[in-house]
Amino acid sequence: MTIDDRKRAEIEAQRAASHETRRATVQALEAILYEHFVVLDHGFVRVIDYMGDDAAIVQAARVSYGAGTRHVREDRALIRYLLRHRHTTPFEMCELKLHIKAPIFVARQWLRHRTASVNEYSARYSKLDREFYVPDAAHLKLILDERRLKERGSMKDLFERMKVLDERSALATQSEFNKQGRDDALSDNEARHALSRFDDTSKRAYAVYKNLLNENTRRTLRNPSYTGLARELARAVLPVNYYTQFYWKIDLHNLLHFLSLRADDHAQYEIRAYAEVILDKIVMRWVPATYEAFRDYGMDAVSLSAGALDVVKRMLAKEDVNEDSSGLSKREWRELMAVLGREP
Amino acid sequence: MTIDDRKRAEIEAQRAASHETRRATVQALEAILYEHFVVLDHGFVRVIDYMGDDAAIVQAARVSYGAGTRHVREDRALIRYLLRHRHTTPFEMCELKLHIKAPIFVARQWLRHRTASVNEYSARYSKLDREFYVPDAAHLKLILDERRLKERGSMKDLFERMKVLDERSALATQSEFNKQGRDDALSDNEARHALSRFDDTSKRAYAVYKNLLNENTRRTLRNPSYTGLARELARAVLPVNYYTQFYWKIDLHNLLHFLSLRADDHAQYEIRAYAEVILDKIVMRWVPATYEAFRDYGMDAVSLSAGALDVVKRMLAKEDVNEDSSGLSKREWRELMAVLGREP
Amino acid sequence: MTIDDRKRAEIEAQRAASHETRRATVQALEAILYEHFVVLDHGFVRVIDYMGDDAAIVQAARVSYGAGTRHVREDRALIRYLLRHRHTTPFEMCELKLHIKAPIFVARQWLRHRTASVNEYSARYSKLDREFYVPDAAHLKLILDERRLKERGSMKDLFERMKVLDERSALATQSEFNKQGRDDALSDNEARHALSRFDDTSKRAYAVYKNLLNENTRRTLRNPSYTGLARELARAVLPVNYYTQFYWKIDLHNLLHFLSLRADDHAQYEIRAYAEVILDKIVMRWVPATYEAFRDYGMDAVSLSAGALDVVKRMLAKEDVNEDSSGLSKREWRELMAVLGREP
Amino acid sequence: MTIDDRKRAEIEAQRAASHETRRATVQALEAILYEHFVVLDHGFVRVIDYMGDDAAIVQAARVSYGAGTRHVREDRALIRYLLRHRHTTPFEMCELKLHIKAPIFVARQWLRHRTASVNEYSARYSKLDREFYVPDAAHLKLILDERRLKERGSMKDLFERMKVLDERSALATQSEFNKQGRDDALSDNEARHALSRFDDTSKRAYAVYKNLLNENTRRTLRNPSYTGLARELARAVLPVNYYTQFYWKIDLHNLLHFLSLRADDHAQYEIRAYAEVILDKIVMRWVPATYEAFRDYGMDAVSLSAGALDVVKRMLAKEDVNEDSSGLSKREWRELMAVLGREP
Repeated sequence: MTIDDRKRAEIEAQRAASHETRRATVQALEAILYEHFVVLDHGFVRVIDYMGDDAAIVQAARVSYGAGTRHVREDRALIRYLLRHRHTTPFEMCELKLHIKAPIFVARQWLRHRTASVNEYSARYSKLDREFYVPDAAHLKLILDERRLKERGSMKDLFERMKVLDERSALATQSEFNKQGRDDALSDNEARHALSRFDDTSKRAYAVYKNLLNENTRRTLRNPSYTGLARELARAVLPVNYYTQFYWKIDLHNLLHFLSLRADDHAQYEIRAYAEVILDKIVMRWVPATYEAFRDYGMDAVSLSAGALDVVKRMLAKEDVNEDSSGLSKREWRELMAVLGREP
Repeated sequence: MTIDDRKRAEIEAQRAASHETRRATVQALEAILYEHFVVLDHGFVRVIDYMGDDAAIVQAARVSYGAGTRHVREDRALIRYLLRHRHTTPFEMCELKLHIKAPIFVARQWLRHRTASVNEYSARYSKLDREFYVPDAAHLKLILDERRLKERGSMKDLFERMKVLDERSALATQSEFNKQGRDDALSDNEARHALSRFDDTSKRAYAVYKNLLNENTRRTLRNPSYTGLARELARAVLPVNYYTQFYWKIDLHNLLHFLSLRADDHAQYEIRAYAEVILDKIVMRWVPATYEAFRDYGMDAVSLSAGALDVVKRMLAKEDVNEDSSGLSKREWRELMAVLGREP
Repeated sequence: MTIDDRKRAEIEAQRAASHETRRATVQALEAILYEHFVVLDHGFVRVIDYMGDDAAIVQAARVSYGAGTRHVREDRALIRYLLRHRHTTPFEMCELKLHIKAPIFVARQWLRHRTASVNEYSARYSKLDREFYVPDAAHLKLILDERRLKERGSMKDLFERMKVLDERSALATQSEFNKQGRDDALSDNEARHALSRFDDTSKRAYAVYKNLLNENTRRTLRNPSYTGLARELARAVLPVNYYTQFYWKIDLHNLLHFLSLRADDHAQYEIRAYAEVILDKIVMRWVPATYEAFRDYGMDAVSLSAGALDVVKRMLAKEDVNEDSSGLSKREWRELMAVLGREP
Repeated sequence: MTIDDRKRAEIEAQRAASHETRRATVQALEAILYEHFVVLDHGFVRVIDYMGDDAAIVQAARVSYGAGTRHVREDRALIRYLLRHRHTTPFEMCELKLHIKAPIFVARQWLRHRTASVNEYSARYSKLDREFYVPDAAHLKLILDERRLKERGSMKDLFERMKVLDERSALATQSEFNKQGRDDALSDNEARHALSRFDDTSKRAYAVYKNLLNENTRRTLRNPSYTGLARELARAVLPVNYYTQFYWKIDLHNLLHFLSLRADDHAQYEIRAYAEVILDKIVMRWVPATYEAFRDYGMDAVSLSAGALDVVKRMLAKEDVNEDSSGLSKREWRELMAVLGREP
């Protein structure tokens, strides 16, 4: 269970409070404050606090005495200019504080980003819950398909299929999936196989963890001839698909950098699932002008090397450039053709 | 002039606004939001925004779903514990955004601290105002006294005298000062001498700056046979007592570190003047429990080396320890005696 | 096995090389360059590269044209002064690059330190070896003793016992331990119990990992009806006692900060084992003057709060201070008495 | 004078030393170690120390036991791949330590980069030399031309002209410049005007500084009725064209980021002069494969926004796109045409 009743009540108590403030305030973000967005099977992302808005970026860029410019349109234009020309410091002036629940292996990738503040739930001092990540059956099937089809098909297509799947996951019945024919039947079995291994080994590990702790709240259920191991040591038997939690605070510039790497196709599916929620559900509500500019100049922009730019110029001058005459390596040529949407 | 009328109006407009928020809010800080505290002759510190409060530190330390603990007293105890045992990460969860106006040489010391976000007014693109720092006459006199008395008296006394002076500066008349006798009359003349040099050379530099720019708004007043230098280059003739401005955003942990160095006796008087305002006027209002704990375990605490601790233990065991038998260097012995409030 | 033969050969090849350099060079560190210090059962620490020495700290503090001062004694005095007065920036001028192999749960604590550069072995792309951490039987017994004796004895004593144990671990026979009587016999059984659980669950997890990967190098041994899961996902079933590896580069100032937290009694035993090797085997060889000063003013120094300092002064003035009259909380009083080596 | 005789001797003493090391060593960089590259009129850049080479990047990326790959060609390919795909952490594994002398206004821009270690010469405690920056007459003329021609000509051309000038500056005689006709004669006079103002105001400021200090080494030359101001305060009258010095240590990844901003056309000429020396004289020698890749994928690469990429695709599909039909803003359209080398 992602959030139990007691926690639900604590969250509701915070949501019910209302204060007067002179600070920059974003109503679209206030609306979802403290709420959790479900990610994966037991994970979530919650906005705990924020500082600043689109106008605060403009205000800092101008080192102004009052708020941003008088007009939202001007603010938007300046934000686009700043992002296009890598004037990144004003984006550091906005701050976001999240509460994250994610599998340990996801947290490990996440916390490699050093320009954030973190407080993580401590398995040294506190007992971990029996909550672990098992991939969604349909998702697992797709991954298995992906591996099988790697040579034949495009990864992009698979990823698109996976996203569609995510969106309708509430409705999608397993049976719909099963109708897709023989190949699918095979990966269906495989998914079941992998799934049960995941589930099984995770549960066993937890049983060992509990046994090592020997902390049953009812004394009579404890092993009387065994003192019990410290939590900090017993937790060492738990696999990295167990869930952990952390508070994570980061400024907008560094958040966008994080998202450009983790909401990217090259990121592992599980962390990308979190990054996409942060980008499309949270950043979009919080700083809409920055979101739009970041889509255009960040996420959806491409970088052309000196050599690649030269090829584009030659192609525009109607020269018939091919791999050999391009001066690019095989790999760079293929990457450039993909960017330009052309057959290699 | 620290703040002119147009800026005053912009600030008032921001102060007049009021929004509903679900975020942690500190009324004592809201009361002074956007207002400026005057520092030195033309400088100021203004709070532009903040995130979090004492309870947010507790909330992060516990990675909790709701707010801090139920009781302010418990929060306070936990905060003291965290600060005493160097569990610093929860203090990173609070954030403060300031607008600073300070002489360039102060800004230079300030911006050596790397764990903050900064947007500074750009003298590359914008014209600097004719505002420069000249030490207060009474302050200058004290500095001159300080140098003269260095061998004779204690620096501490002088610093205390300087603080008293600062506090009553609104009331203190120069004449009161002049009554202090012959020595003072001398340093009074000296102060006047130094002061006029400061003032004079600063004004001349600005005249050269304007001449190099040749940007008079009335075309007829410009030198027609001279194109005018770029602002980024012309500003190179202005001395480091000219005022600059910047937005400065920093988390509470790093702010306390900054204050422990810059509100310290060893810091230059001018930056200390800013640090003391931030500590005693702003941090105290914002996070009172943290402020109190930081005073006890940070600013007003002392560190004893392994050797110094050994001396204290021996003294408590009634041993008559002196410099020779202490095992400390001359300097360390003197420092320890000062810490213990004893004659060396 | 900590290091296999192929790796051994690669290390030896690097050790055999010798170059001419004009850079600051430390012969005591060169002697152990690339070598590994064994830590825990399969872990290690290796020095891969370094920059600077004690003299480089002095050189930077003076922004000098040549090397440090002429005399080692002067360098030492300046280094002590810098460390005592928290002039930390010159220590950033030295840099150390290590290769670490440690259990994932240790790496998790380690990589929370953000002021370092890291390249970790990627379990997304590479297969993990079947190497996991199982506590030493004698160590486990001590931990179990520790828990049982918590109320009765002092943690310090136990820690001392543990250290003695570490030092003679090569020689210590299990039988020596078993002679300590009935209580020990009990914890001996318990240790065996915990140990076998550790071992067992770790091996099972690896079997599942291999099964999920289905990557046997001999095609005939693979499951033909199962495609195999991506490495990045299959690794999710491995527990956090599995070993990982990383390159870790950090400057001396931040390294000392890391060590002050991780070579401390409050740190978990496993990471402390690494920190102590780095401190006492590596830093001591590399920058001996800094090592000595860090012992005195860092690791072995104590901090007295404003209130605690007041108590010490009163005690030195022969006042009979007790907990009630001290003005300290129960906990702070106990901590102060421990620092002063007195009965509470 | 950039370097006086005593400093010259200290540098030579360091250059003369030679040590044995097992560390990665770069002979091309050893050849210039400790030497100074002159920048501007009195400034310099000197390499004091370095850690790592191209192979160390590969070694870290692979978390390997030995050195990089066996073949330089493979190392080069991997480095290009890493830089192209923003796998930046391995580049953090190399470190460079420089000694910089630069005008204060340049140092101010420089030290805004926070991911470096710095020790600056302290004007609080040490007396500053009478060394200040005055732009080169020919350079000033170009700047004045630039302003006058802004509407007429291309900035690029001017910049090219400036670079040519820099290169032959040792040879270029002022008279050659004067032959360029009436316009030039005008800016020649103007340059002389600005130059003398620069020089004059800088010298006056120093005279005031000395007077305030009243520190003449011959007691009889001191003003007997004036105690003298502390250095930390007296220096406040010196303009920002005065030279300062600092040790600056940074890793290769952050150095490349610094260079991509400061060796760029948008950077102020004076800091660009330093950045170009670091890039083309130092980085090129130190890590040639990285240098080449950084040129291709960093400095000389361009970023196309989502919208700009769409325009390029349409143009390649032979559509006749113009500003109106492009969907880009006026400014973005102009920037794209410039990137593609086309008339707007």
